[in-house]
Amino acid sequence: MSCALCDTPAGAVLWQDDFCRVVSADEPDYPGFLRVILNAHIKEMTDLPVADQASLMRVVLAAEAALREVMAPDKINLASLGNVVPHLHWHVIPRYADDPHFPNPVWGEKKRDTPHAATGDLDALLAGALSRRLARARETE
Amino acid sequence: MSCALCDTPAGAVLWQDDFCRVVSADEPDYPGFLRVILNAHIKEMTDLPVADQASLMRVVLAAEAALREVMAPDKINLASLGNVVPHLHWHVIPRYADDPHFPNPVWGEKKRDTPHAATGDLDALLAGALSRRLARARETE
Repeated sequence: MSCALCDTPAGAVLWQDDFCRVVSADEPDYPGFLRVILNAHIKEMTDLPVADQASLMRVVLAAEAALREVMAPDKINLASLGNVVPHLHWHVIPRYADDPHFPNPVWGEKKRDTPHAATGDLDALLAGALSRRLARARETE
Repeated sequence: MSCALCDTPAGAVLWQDDFCRVVSADEPDYPGFLRVILNAHIKEMTDLPVADQASLMRVVLAAEAALREVMAPDKINLASLGNVVPHLHWHVIPRYADDPHFPNPVWGEKKRDTPHAATGDLDALLAGALSRRLARARETE
C-alpha cells in the first residue's frame, strides 16, 4: 500500500542517517515545526526493539534541544499520533503564548491569527544545531 | 505557585515509584487513557538529565505496551504538551477507528458519539500489566 512517509521525504530534510530523518514541516502557522520520521514502515514505538526506541527518542530530544537553542519557544510539544499515516513519526513543535492555538494543542481550536514569521535562514540554523547535537551524542555513546 | 500535578495525584494511581506515576485519566470518552506524570515539577524533557529522560520514556512505553496487551487498540497516541500545566506529563491514549475523534487527535474536531464502554476491572487489568512490565524492565537493567 502507498505510504506518504515511505514514498517521499515529507519535508525539507535537515538531518538524516540510515535509521531516521528530521524534516522541516511545511506548516505556515508554525515555523520550526519539525518531524522526526523513522525510515522503516513501522506503526508503534513498542513495535521497535528497545535499543531502537532509545535511538529514535535521542533524535526527537535533539530536535527539541535544537528548537530551544535556536528559537527559545515558551513550550515544546511532542506527539506521536499516526492515526492518518500509521508510519512512526514524531511531531516536535515550538509553541509561543501568542501563537495561533496556544494554549490549545495545534490540532485544537484556533484562538487567534498571529503566525510567527520565519527568519529566512531558520532551516539552516536548525540543521546546524541538530548536526552538532547528534554528533556529540554519538561520540559519548 | 499552585500546580495541579504537584498538589494532587491527578487520577487513579495504577503504578508509581519515587520518580513518576501512571494514572488513569478521568476521560469518559476514552477509557484506558493513561497519563505518566513526573513527580518533580520540571517543564521540558530536555530539562531532565539524559538518564532520567530514558527512565521516563521506559514508563511511557510500558504504558503503551500495557494498553496494547489489555485493550488491543487500533493505534496508540503519545503526547507531551504541557501548555496549560507546564509540569512534565505524557498522555498515552488507546485509539479506535470508531472512537469519538478518530482519525483526529483527541484534541481535534469530534467526529461521532461512540464512547467505548469501559469494563469494570479495566484499571486493575492495566495496573497488573504495568507492574509486570516495569518489574521485568528493572530486572534486565
